[in-house]
Amino acid sequence: MTQIPEDAIKCLDKGFVRLVDSMGGDDAIVQAARVSYGKGTSEVSQDRGLIRYLMRHRHTTPFEMVEFKFHCKMPIFVARQWVRHRTANINEYSLRYSEARDEFYFPEPEHIQFQSALNKQGRAGKVPKKLTDKVLNYFQEISDRSFEMYQELNEAGLARELIRAILPVNLYTEWYWKNDLHNLLHFIGLRSDPHAQYEIRVFSDAMAESVKAVAPFAWEAYQDYVVRGMRFSRIEQSLLEKQLPSRVVDDILEDIAYQITATLHHNKPREDSDLYPLYQKQGGSDSEADFKLKWDSGEIKIGNVRELREFKSKLVNLKR
Amino acid sequence: MTQIPEDAIKCLDKGFVRLVDSMGGDDAIVQAARVSYGKGTSEVSQDRGLIRYLMRHRHTTPFEMVEFKFHCKMPIFVARQWVRHRTANINEYSLRYSEARDEFYFPEPEHIQFQSALNKQGRAGKVPKKLTDKVLNYFQEISDRSFEMYQELNEAGLARELIRAILPVNLYTEWYWKNDLHNLLHFIGLRSDPHAQYEIRVFSDAMAESVKAVAPFAWEAYQDYVVRGMRFSRIEQSLLEKQLPSRVVDDILEDIAYQITATLHHNKPREDSDLYPLYQKQGGSDSEADFKLKWDSGEIKIGNVRELREFKSKLVNLKR
Amino acid sequence: MTQIPEDAIKCLDKGFVRLVDSMGGDDAIVQAARVSYGKGTSEVSQDRGLIRYLMRHRHTTPFEMVEFKFHCKMPIFVARQWVRHRTANINEYSLRYSEARDEFYFPEPEHIQFQSALNKQGRAGKVPKKLTDKVLNYFQEISDRSFEMYQELNEAGLARELIRAILPVNLYTEWYWKNDLHNLLHFIGLRSDPHAQYEIRVFSDAMAESVKAVAPFAWEAYQDYVVRGMRFSRIEQSLLEKQLPSRVVDDILEDIAYQITATLHHNKPREDSDLYPLYQKQGGSDSEADFKLKWDSGEIKIGNVRELREFKSKLVNLKR
Amino acid sequence: MTQIPEDAIKCLDKGFVRLVDSMGGDDAIVQAARVSYGKGTSEVSQDRGLIRYLMRHRHTTPFEMVEFKFHCKMPIFVARQWVRHRTANINEYSLRYSEARDEFYFPEPEHIQFQSALNKQGRAGKVPKKLTDKVLNYFQEISDRSFEMYQELNEAGLARELIRAILPVNLYTEWYWKNDLHNLLHFIGLRSDPHAQYEIRVFSDAMAESVKAVAPFAWEAYQDYVVRGMRFSRIEQSLLEKQLPSRVVDDILEDIAYQITATLHHNKPREDSDLYPLYQKQGGSDSEADFKLKWDSGEIKIGNVRELREFKSKLVNLKR
Repeated sequence: MTQIPEDAIKCLDKGFVRLVDSMGGDDAIVQAARVSYGKGTSEVSQDRGLIRYLMRHRHTTPFEMVEFKFHCKMPIFVARQWVRHRTANINEYSLRYSEARDEFYFPEPEHIQFQSALNKQGRAGKVPKKLTDKVLNYFQEISDRSFEMYQELNEAGLARELIRAILPVNLYTEWYWKNDLHNLLHFIGLRSDPHAQYEIRVFSDAMAESVKAVAPFAWEAYQDYVVRGMRFSRIEQSLLEKQLPSRVVDDILEDIAYQITATLHHNKPREDSDLYPLYQKQGGSDSEADFKLKWDSGEIKIGNVRELREFKSKLVNLKR
Repeated sequence: MTQIPEDAIKCLDKGFVRLVDSMGGDDAIVQAARVSYGKGTSEVSQDRGLIRYLMRHRHTTPFEMVEFKFHCKMPIFVARQWVRHRTANINEYSLRYSEARDEFYFPEPEHIQFQSALNKQGRAGKVPKKLTDKVLNYFQEISDRSFEMYQELNEAGLARELIRAILPVNLYTEWYWKNDLHNLLHFIGLRSDPHAQYEIRVFSDAMAESVKAVAPFAWEAYQDYVVRGMRFSRIEQSLLEKQLPSRVVDDILEDIAYQITATLHHNKPREDSDLYPLYQKQGGSDSEADFKLKWDSGEIKIGNVRELREFKSKLVNLKR
Repeated sequence: MTQIPEDAIKCLDKGFVRLVDSMGGDDAIVQAARVSYGKGTSEVSQDRGLIRYLMRHRHTTPFEMVEFKFHCKMPIFVARQWVRHRTANINEYSLRYSEARDEFYFPEPEHIQFQSALNKQGRAGKVPKKLTDKVLNYFQEISDRSFEMYQELNEAGLARELIRAILPVNLYTEWYWKNDLHNLLHFIGLRSDPHAQYEIRVFSDAMAESVKAVAPFAWEAYQDYVVRGMRFSRIEQSLLEKQLPSRVVDDILEDIAYQITATLHHNKPREDSDLYPLYQKQGGSDSEADFKLKWDSGEIKIGNVRELREFKSKLVNLKR
Repeated sequence: MTQIPEDAIKCLDKGFVRLVDSMGGDDAIVQAARVSYGKGTSEVSQDRGLIRYLMRHRHTTPFEMVEFKFHCKMPIFVARQWVRHRTANINEYSLRYSEARDEFYFPEPEHIQFQSALNKQGRAGKVPKKLTDKVLNYFQEISDRSFEMYQELNEAGLARELIRAILPVNLYTEWYWKNDLHNLLHFIGLRSDPHAQYEIRVFSDAMAESVKAVAPFAWEAYQDYVVRGMRFSRIEQSLLEKQLPSRVVDDILEDIAYQITATLHHNKPREDSDLYPLYQKQGGSDSEADFKLKWDSGEIKIGNVRELREFKSKLVNLKR
């Protein structure tokens, strides 16, 4: 079994994640998108904008053009969840062919928790030391005893493919795991979620570090539009429609009119006299005097014109 | 955990395979092929011929038009091999959500065998009763002890997703498993092979019964052209071409005995006196005098010992 | 080329979609989910609730347990978009093997529109009759002329695989197309979207009819949670957080407290005296007198407790 | 549309294949295999042996650890065949978004051939110059005329997604295409086969050059064990077993001549006087007297003509 390599991120007590190789990054996403959607300029700021546009509109194929390969070592019960992501390529350590090693996962006391009452799949609450000690003793006992048996039977020459059946799922295994960025982000989205089991979250978070380094714009866009977005169902939306006072929506729309104006001005500065008409064109309804006061207030933030316009149309829908 | 349903095929001591549903059969293969390759008559004999033609020529897409859904229950170490077939749809019993049941796999004494010396992944040979008893006792002990611990910790309210980590991989799990015929045949081709682990072969053979019943022509064609076919590599083929038809197989086998001898000698040089016995061990039948003449002729090529031995066993099959 | 079958839905001028076969429905989703998440009762209302829960929380694998097979006929340029959905199994009419038929797509005048100025991929606006006539004449001319050439060369015995290269992409083709429900819903989500090209939307809408009939709860849940949901990005969310007056959010939360109370009461009726405490437990802050007035007003709608609680936690996040 | 880049391989008259990026090579296959099958020494000769072993025994997952990304430009009818390989990631030039360019495929006169009589999907034979000229004129006329119309309608502002429908499938398109080595070899195995259409074979052969350079051992092994191997079906094999080693191939061929004759007669009965000439046409070499004796013996089995002929051609290969 592989020791933890120097350039790996340690995970749990004996596991790790190591980026072995990658192909492409933000540039490869942009390159692929441009063959589909035509040429554009090549400034870095525009690459970022294009990547965010693709993510926002679920144009997922350009993200498939980036590939990652990891070497990972984790307990079998973690591998069992992991392997359900079927788009990846995997080569795993074989216990039919090779001997098992004496490496088992023992949880840190702080991660030994009660079954959650709310979440049938989760854990919660602080466990008294006496009970965490018992858990740890049991992990130790079953690991030691099963491995002792395994070794004895292995030395007696019995078939490894059979005698491995007595080893518990806290035994460590390892594999090479290769996946494209689109599917890797989906994996991380599910497995770095607070509802995912702690023991796989640690590995997902470690892989996230590689994604951030290799494709920082794609990572940021995924966070902004998928992970940290908030989605309202049709029913929730209709409740919002009923309850949100028109005035509140109008206030936000007014705010957006200022932001779009400031952003357009920032991207391509206008004459002072052109600013108020530009603001009106964006749906702004303040008087020219109020506009000037607000404009000079220093409170108006700039953003991304396309995103702001999309937000505007969502809000208008809420007013229906 | 589901008891063995009436219409299921029992597998191992507590597992099963049950065909839950299927879509299409031989007729669906023919229907799909005919949209691609045009109309034809519809006699049953011609359906069989068309299916055999498709199989022989690797036209695999019509076989994807048939779908199978199974309910299966098997030990975790079997599930771990099984799940590597990534084209299937799977819903597995979750030990995060549900409690583990006291159901563990205990092998029949006859399936407790030694590690194969020839096949690093296999088992072979008869094991003395004393030793099979020890194996069974160990399976029993580790299953009982780990489940006792699991129950105690579960009753103490600890998180199931964590305490399951002490359960061994001979614990039974279950799932719904859905796959198309093309990929199911590929699964069976690999997992009903004599080189597959016995414990998964049992399940593969059980699913094969459903395939035979649902799509008998496709099953027969797969057996005839893929499973029981004999393929000669480019190298083997060129040897065959040179040797046939005179004296044929024996001559080739004689040749191979020389080649293996020379290759073994090349990889790890022997004393002169050891060469003739070595050659005889490879099945060579020339006299010692003839052997020396040939050996000094400079005509003997070296090769790859494993490849030559595989070729030999194929030729021996041809001699039967 | 297949004529439009009786049980098919006609699409465009000469195409169709026909459900050939399907495996499972809402019941198969529930069956698969229950092997993963444990038993439950089996009333229909609970099946619907379970399916909605699965959809809301992206538990997609149970939806993969339902399979659809369609026979479809559509122009080549539609088939080219369609085929990009790689999870499906396809058997298409082959122009290498079979002769092309004289069947070409001619758009209805109302679908001949200008290139959209806003949406680089769309069409918009009304086109003068003179211009739609020209378009139709060109479609007619190129279809007639290319098919005339094709026939002449075909009769001269030239290879079909080559001479088909002069046929335009408005030529009709046909195929069998098989996919699971999860991926079919994803297809329909993208291709029945108003931004999808009209000519593929027609086919997507036709397949949607089959989904509605075969798995009505899954269809409804997909609409409610995915298609008609509204997603706010992190940036939009932070704008909402800033602009939404706490009072507005509190009003909606108050509303939800009433809805949850009424729903719990509806599912399992309580004593009158237990209602106000129950309402308070849901976070309601009206006085008992106000509570009674509102309770008797007949305005309170019931919903799904789990959904309402999830909505509540989203709103609380907006108040941060 | 992209001009042919310097480092690209030109394909057909205006297309190309360019290796944009790759991840791993023979070394990555070995690395992945060793995590599964344990350590070994690292000499190059042993890498080759390991790779050949993996290929011979269908251990395909290590080959999935190598990834290729190509930029390709090809006619639409070629792209339509190509895209059926569903494991690849693709980003294609969009005619909804971008304008079509005046680039159409015109075949070289030598590739304009007749429809094959033997192979319903192939082409064969030399075509008189007068006829190849006609084909070329038709390709030219339809390309020119359709593009002229397209341009006129495009300048009139009509929606590109619609008016592209009049363009023929010899129009060039382009894409980024990314795939792993296992699936790429499968693609090349099918598309560089002599039965594949010439126009896609050119592209497959060009990609093969990259595979040879990036993973030479894997390429060689695939050729030796898959592409150029010779596989005997169960039926062929059992015939071989019976006949070898005496007189061998000629005897079997003689047998087949009888079997084919009897089968043809069974399918469509002939006059007695036609039987001996028919038998001779199948390659039979017995005298007429011997033929009659054998014919009346009742020993001749009937089979499937196509299968028997395929077997014959394999045996003829064995005689070379």
